[in-house]
Amino acid sequence: MAQKPSIPKGTRDFGPMEMAKRNYIFNTIKDVYALYGFQQIETPAMENLSTLMGKYGEEGDKLLFKILNSGDFLHGMTAEEVAETSTLKLAAKFCEKGLRYDLTVPFARYVVQHREELQMPFKRYQIQPVWRADRPQKGRYREFYQCDADVVGSDSLLNEVELMQIVDTVFTKFGVRVQIKINNRKILTGIAEVIGEAEKIVDITVAIDKLDKIGLDAVNDELRKDGISEEAIEKLQPIIKLEGTNDDKLNVIREVLATSETGLKGVEETQFILDSLKGSLNNEIQLDLTLARGLNYYTGAIFEVKALDVQIGSITGGGRYDNLTGIFGMPGLSGVGISFGADRIYDVLNQLDLYPKEAVNTTQLLFINFGEKETAYCLPVAASARKAGIRTEVFPDSVKMKKQMSYANAKHIPFVALAGENEIAEGKLTLKNMTTGEQSLVTPEELIAAISGTC
Amino acid sequence: MAQKPSIPKGTRDFGPMEMAKRNYIFNTIKDVYALYGFQQIETPAMENLSTLMGKYGEEGDKLLFKILNSGDFLHGMTAEEVAETSTLKLAAKFCEKGLRYDLTVPFARYVVQHREELQMPFKRYQIQPVWRADRPQKGRYREFYQCDADVVGSDSLLNEVELMQIVDTVFTKFGVRVQIKINNRKILTGIAEVIGEAEKIVDITVAIDKLDKIGLDAVNDELRKDGISEEAIEKLQPIIKLEGTNDDKLNVIREVLATSETGLKGVEETQFILDSLKGSLNNEIQLDLTLARGLNYYTGAIFEVKALDVQIGSITGGGRYDNLTGIFGMPGLSGVGISFGADRIYDVLNQLDLYPKEAVNTTQLLFINFGEKETAYCLPVAASARKAGIRTEVFPDSVKMKKQMSYANAKHIPFVALAGENEIAEGKLTLKNMTTGEQSLVTPEELIAAISGTC
Repeated sequence: MAQKPSIPKGTRDFGPMEMAKRNYIFNTIKDVYALYGFQQIETPAMENLSTLMGKYGEEGDKLLFKILNSGDFLHGMTAEEVAETSTLKLAAKFCEKGLRYDLTVPFARYVVQHREELQMPFKRYQIQPVWRADRPQKGRYREFYQCDADVVGSDSLLNEVELMQIVDTVFTKFGVRVQIKINNRKILTGIAEVIGEAEKIVDITVAIDKLDKIGLDAVNDELRKDGISEEAIEKLQPIIKLEGTNDDKLNVIREVLATSETGLKGVEETQFILDSLKGSLNNEIQLDLTLARGLNYYTGAIFEVKALDVQIGSITGGGRYDNLTGIFGMPGLSGVGISFGADRIYDVLNQLDLYPKEAVNTTQLLFINFGEKETAYCLPVAASARKAGIRTEVFPDSVKMKKQMSYANAKHIPFVALAGENEIAEGKLTLKNMTTGEQSLVTPEELIAAISGTC
Repeated sequence: MAQKPSIPKGTRDFGPMEMAKRNYIFNTIKDVYALYGFQQIETPAMENLSTLMGKYGEEGDKLLFKILNSGDFLHGMTAEEVAETSTLKLAAKFCEKGLRYDLTVPFARYVVQHREELQMPFKRYQIQPVWRADRPQKGRYREFYQCDADVVGSDSLLNEVELMQIVDTVFTKFGVRVQIKINNRKILTGIAEVIGEAEKIVDITVAIDKLDKIGLDAVNDELRKDGISEEAIEKLQPIIKLEGTNDDKLNVIREVLATSETGLKGVEETQFILDSLKGSLNNEIQLDLTLARGLNYYTGAIFEVKALDVQIGSITGGGRYDNLTGIFGMPGLSGVGISFGADRIYDVLNQLDLYPKEAVNTTQLLFINFGEKETAYCLPVAASARKAGIRTEVFPDSVKMKKQMSYANAKHIPFVALAGENEIAEGKLTLKNMTTGEQSLVTPEELIAAISGTC
């Protein structure tokens, strides 16, 4: 019993300061989502395993946290049957429910289940934890929040335009300089077509997606290993190395893809998105033909955001998909979405020290406790301060002054009020500014006015 | 596949309107908690089963959702071993983790685990879902939010006083008239002592706690069944039936408990709390000697809140406990807490129709989409509106006007902006007030000013 308790590996407690910072991140993103008419939904932590299984590949099925059925989960199985059955099949027998693995599949399930109530296009956002039985490592957790916005039921590229504006607005509010990268799955398909390797589209994009990390030579080696012909690799080089403005790149790639209908469609879409955004963003948006991201899933625009002043992976990403709800029997619904990486954004804001003071400030005023009589004098003043919106504490115990002051310091409380015999006799209080050390004798009204004017 | 997907029984999806209302409830409570210097924490959904088991009684252990270990959970068990092991023990072998059952035990675990970092008294609040494998029924879910605030590390009754002020402030903000009931475990102990049935304290309080529901005769019958002597029941009658002001009741009970040291301590505590609150609450606080609430847990003040204008069980409750962290090897830490019942408060606000319009309003302005050229004209106006803080949508698809207007109606969007050829030629837009039906031709600046002035 005396052993210090702990939490499961890969999970975290969030203390007051971490929560204040996380709330700042989530509230900023929520406000921007709302500014664009997105509405919040929440889905249960537990989904039926039939909803989750087979949606994340074989590896994903293994990484699902499964919940043991209540009561007699053996359900009449004999011990021999148990011993003879594979672990994976036993898990399926013992468990009907699992913890959600992402927000996308539950969202698809939600849309299909509530299709009659929903007004299309449906613009929803969702900020909830997800769980994965991954091997925990630095920056990878078994429980973490996702922070998604999607529009379903509209093919319009205006949705892509809006999502880019949302990304730009959010990072502008954070004060983080970012580069937004955009590409289009149709352009990638077109490239694979014109270099004569249409059926190798997945291999090609997986390889060129690594350009940033492993360099051009290694990418070409990988393409060779994948069985891409030398001729095709040759043709690919100018595309991979393409530089210049977005319009320059679009002009070149339009000619390269002249024979690919799909490819040209992708160029057109990208041109529309970039043209619509011209002059409206604070951050740079760059066409990056090597950007691929979870290709099997996306069908149109794809995007990714990188922080310019911190070395860290992508902090936001997303794209257009065409058949999210098909797996639940509702085909043909197009959608486009983005997902902010809250944990990485947290690290970026920490490294750049960008949390606004107001966001992480808690209590503004502490009344020191000198005893029962003195506290009785302070309580109505504390009540008035709270009525004025000042976050106020009265130290509950009449302990040594030093202990109370160190409480104020530890909690970074900027103002402390003291009322002893002398103050009470005059109907006043001593107000101490903990930052400057200044003290002044003030009336309750003056005290409230002084603090209201600050934070 | 074509079968409509569903969610596990006892769980819920929260759509946009429900989320807006729930956010209003949680944000109101959070703001008041913060006003009193409480800080938010979050703990993981999964705890080690060693943390959870044995903390909620035998029944509670059964109601814990257990998570199947990843990979080979059989861990080499033979058929014989499986056959010889009970279901409950098998579950313990197969599962190391469980979903949290309440916020209290994880909080105790948190305090012990982080004791070196925490500043005492530690005032924390926590708003997270909990999971219980209870049989679902009306108003009882398998996943629901708890909304707790606790102060640990302080014996001061000022904490009780503050928690009552918090309760009063929250329900005042909601516009819900409530009655706060208060009692004290020490008074109950004293009563059991003076009627000569000290060892039957649990039976007595369980019985009289039912007075509201089953009436006095049934309570007395239950006491008889519990083996309480006729003499003791006789002595109990005037206490149960005690009426009058709080001070009246305290005066009577002080005399009744004259021979019980513990009882008198309880009277004193209650007197201090009620005296400190005099004149500071908007709602009535009433001493109710029959209030018991989870007695084994509480050691001092206990409280409960009832809505006056809706027939529903208690909507908030709490009390003082003395040994929360003892089970994790950190004895002697006193605490006091409250818990708002979010689901019931939701129902109360719904029934009384008390959600403020601003809280459930989403988009304020919709631009109708007449085509690519018209939309290009609207986009910068939409951007300016958002810069002015107006929640704005541009309908993404150029579909029939009727469909767009019915989208605005369904989403209760109060203003719609239209710009066709004529408006564009004049550099203006038509602004339609969806509530009054009024239309006016305005400049972009006038449009923004008109809406900024409203919601």
